[in-house]
Amino acid sequence: MRKYLLPIMFACALPVTTMAQQQSDSLVLRQLADEVLTHSTAYENLRVLTKTIGARLAGSPQMVKAEKWGFEALKAAGADTVYYQECMVPHWVRGAKEEARIISRLRDFVPPLNVLALGNSVGSGPKGITAPVLEVASFEDLEAKKDQVKGKIVFYNYHFAPTHIKTFHSYRDAYIYRSHGASRAAKYGALAVIVRSMSHGANNFPHTGAMAYDSAFPKIPAVAIGLQDADRLSKRLETDKSMQVFLRTNCQMLQDTIGHNVVAELRGSKYQDQFITVGGHLDSWDVCEGAHDDGAGCVQSIEVLRAFKARGIKPLRTLRVVLFANEENGTRGARKYAALAKARGEKHIMALESDAGGFTPRGFSSTMPADKHAIMVSWKPLFLPYGLYDFEEEGGGTDVGMLHAATGAPMVELSPDSQRYFDIHHAASDVFEAVNKRELELGAFGMAGLIYMADLYF
Amino acid sequence: MRKYLLPIMFACALPVTTMAQQQSDSLVLRQLADEVLTHSTAYENLRVLTKTIGARLAGSPQMVKAEKWGFEALKAAGADTVYYQECMVPHWVRGAKEEARIISRLRDFVPPLNVLALGNSVGSGPKGITAPVLEVASFEDLEAKKDQVKGKIVFYNYHFAPTHIKTFHSYRDAYIYRSHGASRAAKYGALAVIVRSMSHGANNFPHTGAMAYDSAFPKIPAVAIGLQDADRLSKRLETDKSMQVFLRTNCQMLQDTIGHNVVAELRGSKYQDQFITVGGHLDSWDVCEGAHDDGAGCVQSIEVLRAFKARGIKPLRTLRVVLFANEENGTRGARKYAALAKARGEKHIMALESDAGGFTPRGFSSTMPADKHAIMVSWKPLFLPYGLYDFEEEGGGTDVGMLHAATGAPMVELSPDSQRYFDIHHAASDVFEAVNKRELELGAFGMAGLIYMADLYF
Repeated sequence: MRKYLLPIMFACALPVTTMAQQQSDSLVLRQLADEVLTHSTAYENLRVLTKTIGARLAGSPQMVKAEKWGFEALKAAGADTVYYQECMVPHWVRGAKEEARIISRLRDFVPPLNVLALGNSVGSGPKGITAPVLEVASFEDLEAKKDQVKGKIVFYNYHFAPTHIKTFHSYRDAYIYRSHGASRAAKYGALAVIVRSMSHGANNFPHTGAMAYDSAFPKIPAVAIGLQDADRLSKRLETDKSMQVFLRTNCQMLQDTIGHNVVAELRGSKYQDQFITVGGHLDSWDVCEGAHDDGAGCVQSIEVLRAFKARGIKPLRTLRVVLFANEENGTRGARKYAALAKARGEKHIMALESDAGGFTPRGFSSTMPADKHAIMVSWKPLFLPYGLYDFEEEGGGTDVGMLHAATGAPMVELSPDSQRYFDIHHAASDVFEAVNKRELELGAFGMAGLIYMADLYF
Repeated sequence: MRKYLLPIMFACALPVTTMAQQQSDSLVLRQLADEVLTHSTAYENLRVLTKTIGARLAGSPQMVKAEKWGFEALKAAGADTVYYQECMVPHWVRGAKEEARIISRLRDFVPPLNVLALGNSVGSGPKGITAPVLEVASFEDLEAKKDQVKGKIVFYNYHFAPTHIKTFHSYRDAYIYRSHGASRAAKYGALAVIVRSMSHGANNFPHTGAMAYDSAFPKIPAVAIGLQDADRLSKRLETDKSMQVFLRTNCQMLQDTIGHNVVAELRGSKYQDQFITVGGHLDSWDVCEGAHDDGAGCVQSIEVLRAFKARGIKPLRTLRVVLFANEENGTRGARKYAALAKARGEKHIMALESDAGGFTPRGFSSTMPADKHAIMVSWKPLFLPYGLYDFEEEGGGTDVGMLHAATGAPMVELSPDSQRYFDIHHAASDVFEAVNKRELELGAFGMAGLIYMADLYF
């Protein structure tokens, strides 16, 4: 009989809390969980945000409505104060539905291709673009075929890796084709790009998302394509040498417009001028309800404040709930929040974000000094009964990342189960119905619990 | 700065495997994960089972089709041998759709109540039952009100507890009203029972499930009611003292009929006469596709065998895949399997079941001797990269429980994330679309990995 060796965990090298303190913390966490699982308003808030406001890209009229909704929801949750933080945001509009189809001398019937213009991309002009298609598997493949690119539509058919267990690791490998594919192809004379959607989904939804142009090269149209259509296009290219693709997008980048972070505070009982930030982003892509991305993070952050108030738990530090503007195609809200925090010399204890979906939480990814991280890891036994066990992953969120960069504040992101996330990410399938009430609530509890602990021990 | 004390884990008291062995096991697990996540047939198998066969209660023609499907799927997966194991199964039929409505002197419009007869329950007769309703919150409440029961329909309005983190703990508290509520009420002269569905769902699906009669009391009709209708009924009862409920169910228990376990073997390379069992149950309730319950467990078990074969991993012991007959309303298949194993004096190393949904796996619940369990727990570091961390829960599955009882074999059940399970359990919402491909596959990997380890170290 052989036995596996378990890692021996450090336990004695650092000063320890008393058992009594551990027990008392454990009871507060149980209270927070009971409060959230029994009385949460997160799910109903999400329903209102997604079903009565819906898609809310920066600059859109719905985003203005969402800001007002967020303001009222934070007041209702019991904030001491709620205010707007103005910032300039990009104003990209999709225009009329984009079109794409295969044109072939074979004259067989070919259904249109399901595509979606990438955020921030330019329109094709009313006549569209008709050109042969060059398929590439990767940037390496593009470089190898660079002499064939001129005058073509480049089709990035990079497959989302199925073998990563955490799907964000697949995204990390894949998103560069969406973000940088257009300019990399324009460099060699491409007329447009089609990018295989970043998804494991077994459906045909195209998944949009932000892209950026390199000013050194012409700005060319860029679209995402659904997985089934990507496979169909790839197969056709093998045999139909005469085929071309017609592509028309009608999007444009207008002048920057005004947007707002919505900020609420629960004043600290001891250190009012020290801050713990918790937030999600209020904007979403224009083609979906933004339920998981990131309505969930918003209503969870509001729920943290509500649960603290409802149970009379008074944080020592001031709790700031921030519903960030414009995470999707500019992160201008987060930049504004970080710039103000830095300019005012604010002391930020921790910044926590939820922007990875409203699925069952599994832990937290974070970036902070090693001593702080060791303290956080030592809380694991308190969170394990709630299914939060994964405290090791490095990371943090896009929005709190700006604060981290500006002030060095420890940053944390909630890590929900990631298996379903890229089925719905930036696609029409990101709707309220894809969110489970209890999963959403358990995430809100995890956030509340971490903030309770950081407030006491950071 | 204070630090939480971590539990110091035992690590030195038992003989340990070498680092080289750990590394080699870790590589095999990675191979199994890659195989399943890249080439699994589990999802497609599940589609065929649920969409072309569908609901398959014991005794139904679809169950016969499902047995043939299972036989062929196991052959296709690469089994050395596949065979049927005959057993007698109960043959309960629902008959025409059940009806329930509120009848009141108020003569206002009242929509019908969405109810579903409980499995194994008797029909009401063609005239149905019309009677006043007595609501009770629990068996204690029933006892307190026992003098009011006679001539009434008893309405068990026990609420599924929201504060348990693992939803099966809520089920454990609640299911007794479904299983024993009818006879407990019949004892005091009730004419029928209505049971609030065991669910957190925010919808109105009634959830059926097995019940059993105590032969000491009259057999009375028993139905489940959707949560929204349960709340509506309860509210109405507060104010409308004249109201009665009309209830008609058309179900009946026919004579036992013939069913089969479908069994496949991958012969052991060293100990052919020692067995590791892996399985799920092939039957499902008659009102749903039985995708999570338990199509998922069946296709995952088949996938374990397929992945071993595909990667050329030859278990030392004989691997038995069992698609059990009749888990839902009789467990006759499992009893047969256990009785045969005992009669033949078979040596069973471990029996693993998946019957808690096809959601992302989080670990394993088990019942086995402490020394075996310590060995299993020592594998945690190998499974943690795949998100399986929870090895402590006591348990095991219903079907493997029969083998455990008969032979003492260690029993294990896959523990998937449980938050969504009772949204779909035994309800029309248990359909293929509710299953996520990757979540299903990760569960199959977890099972394959555990079997690989148990085969080597148990």
